[in-house]
Amino acid sequence: MHMEYRYGLMTVQWDDKDKSLVLIDQRRLPNRLEYIRCKSHEQVADCIKSMAVRGAPAIGVAAAFGLALAAINSKAKDKESFMHEIDAAFKLLRATRPTAINLFWALERIMSKARGADSIDKAREAMLSEAVAMLKEDLDVNRRLGDHGSLLLNDGDRVLTHCNAGALATVGYGTALGVIRAAKEKGKRISVIATETRPVMQGARLTAFELKHDGIDVSIAPDTSVALLMARGMIDKVIVGADRVLRDGHVFNKIGTYQVAILAKEHNIPFYVAAPLSSFDLKSKVEDVIIEERAYDEVVKIARRRIAPKGIRVFNPAFDVTPPTLITAIITEKGVLEPPYEQSIASVFNL
Amino acid sequence: MHMEYRYGLMTVQWDDKDKSLVLIDQRRLPNRLEYIRCKSHEQVADCIKSMAVRGAPAIGVAAAFGLALAAINSKAKDKESFMHEIDAAFKLLRATRPTAINLFWALERIMSKARGADSIDKAREAMLSEAVAMLKEDLDVNRRLGDHGSLLLNDGDRVLTHCNAGALATVGYGTALGVIRAAKEKGKRISVIATETRPVMQGARLTAFELKHDGIDVSIAPDTSVALLMARGMIDKVIVGADRVLRDGHVFNKIGTYQVAILAKEHNIPFYVAAPLSSFDLKSKVEDVIIEERAYDEVVKIARRRIAPKGIRVFNPAFDVTPPTLITAIITEKGVLEPPYEQSIASVFNL
Repeated sequence: MHMEYRYGLMTVQWDDKDKSLVLIDQRRLPNRLEYIRCKSHEQVADCIKSMAVRGAPAIGVAAAFGLALAAINSKAKDKESFMHEIDAAFKLLRATRPTAINLFWALERIMSKARGADSIDKAREAMLSEAVAMLKEDLDVNRRLGDHGSLLLNDGDRVLTHCNAGALATVGYGTALGVIRAAKEKGKRISVIATETRPVMQGARLTAFELKHDGIDVSIAPDTSVALLMARGMIDKVIVGADRVLRDGHVFNKIGTYQVAILAKEHNIPFYVAAPLSSFDLKSKVEDVIIEERAYDEVVKIARRRIAPKGIRVFNPAFDVTPPTLITAIITEKGVLEPPYEQSIASVFNL
Repeated sequence: MHMEYRYGLMTVQWDDKDKSLVLIDQRRLPNRLEYIRCKSHEQVADCIKSMAVRGAPAIGVAAAFGLALAAINSKAKDKESFMHEIDAAFKLLRATRPTAINLFWALERIMSKARGADSIDKAREAMLSEAVAMLKEDLDVNRRLGDHGSLLLNDGDRVLTHCNAGALATVGYGTALGVIRAAKEKGKRISVIATETRPVMQGARLTAFELKHDGIDVSIAPDTSVALLMARGMIDKVIVGADRVLRDGHVFNKIGTYQVAILAKEHNIPFYVAAPLSSFDLKSKVEDVIIEERAYDEVVKIARRRIAPKGIRVFNPAFDVTPPTLITAIITEKGVLEPPYEQSIASVFNL
């Protein structure tokens, strides 16, 4: 299958001939660019759980194809037992990562197609075309989000980003890094500083890899050096992605985002969040959202080598929450939202 | 040689029988507790440069013994050529690490003994006894600093520390961790949260190791999780060490200290610096101090495995500077100094 995109990596692809989902195996990066071919929803769930595929939008689209694969593979004879199987696949996929809102939203979209169809064949077809539509939408949304965000960047800007909200976090092109790609396409010279992003090192491994792959100027900085770089005047702007944006502007994103936002404010540096509308959760309150606590081994071992004493207790929250007071603007595919967010978010959703 | 100390590891020891300096090889921690025996000043310089021994006070005492070893090993026939050799060793040792003030201070103390002696034999003896005195002083200073600092901690406190200002950064007992040891000896229950401290991971590797070794409650937190832990009310106090304290209260310490201080202020958490008076630099201004930029490989490789794309540009400053406005108090062996630091520092030095 060939998708239209200007340049960059394709993280999520659908091979229609082979009826399989093709994902970049992000655990191998930056040392090897390898692809995994998933032919079942269980394989897709494993890929999400083990972070072979990660990033809220990429997870959403991958999960949508996971559910479509469950439909394709189903041997059910009647719609009721088909729905029973699909429901089990839905629950498996839904339980892979608790914080990313796109996962629930994407699965819900595919489920409604399954429910709405009056035969198994029609359900299969509707579910798969919905997943394909979501894949195209994601690329399209990122392009539009990038265009809006690119207006916030000036020629020569040095932009700090945390984690990876890039092509590798989406189907392709990226959200935060999509803004940088769009600015570059408009002829602006942008250099990027990628924080390492312990413990999983998405910045050093993924952001540095994908920007270098696309010929965009990028440097790596340890998470501990952010404030010093800001104090030295080496950062003009910060742009990060979002795993979930609440109606009042609270942003859930990779652990470390909240402190980068505090440091940006302390040094009078604009702090932008790039988030497609699919990342918005208009229902939950900040205290309702579960912050996933991940495995001990992510922290105490690197490349299977132990870097901490045996049996030590470890904190490993995967996300944190940044309050709206620290956020200069939220960049969406429908424009740049400014404070007060209660109003600008309500307005973009026509509430 | 047996030194008096209550408990804990001895990082720097002098074996008088074998005329050798015995150092814990900190590059092997936390997986193996191994010792290196240095019989020449070149070996000592290598150990400092490669961070087999690290931490401002430990470096100072190790360098002092390095200079004493140069004297012991000298085959010079007259004082002039002896001083020529000693001066070359002095320069080699002085060039190992540019930021730690103790290194210069310690070498200067040994040099003055060399200069003051009227024979080579007397110089040898005076230099070695001065180094031994410095070793004993370091332990004694840490005990007294710990006693003063322990009054700032309450029973049940959860204390965050960055990097390693412990027994492993000093001859033994530690400065920041000496405060925690002293509080524990007084019956206070203290739990410690050690930040990993990228890129060299002194927190995960060294602080976690030495506190666990001594039976003190300790957990590891990624550097990215500091603000979240503070926002969740999981940190009562922060204590860090110092590589250099200026007369106006600016503190040079491990990269990441400055941002932890900003985050502590943002969350109304007291931020203490534990620094023996030997870490104070009463002459330099903040702009005079060189911040050491360390090797690329410290960031892009962990345990020889590449974690970032090849040829990527990297920022790797080893230290940062925390302004006095972010520091609640500075704990010394002569008491706890409070703002305004111009006054309290002048007063403790009788200026």
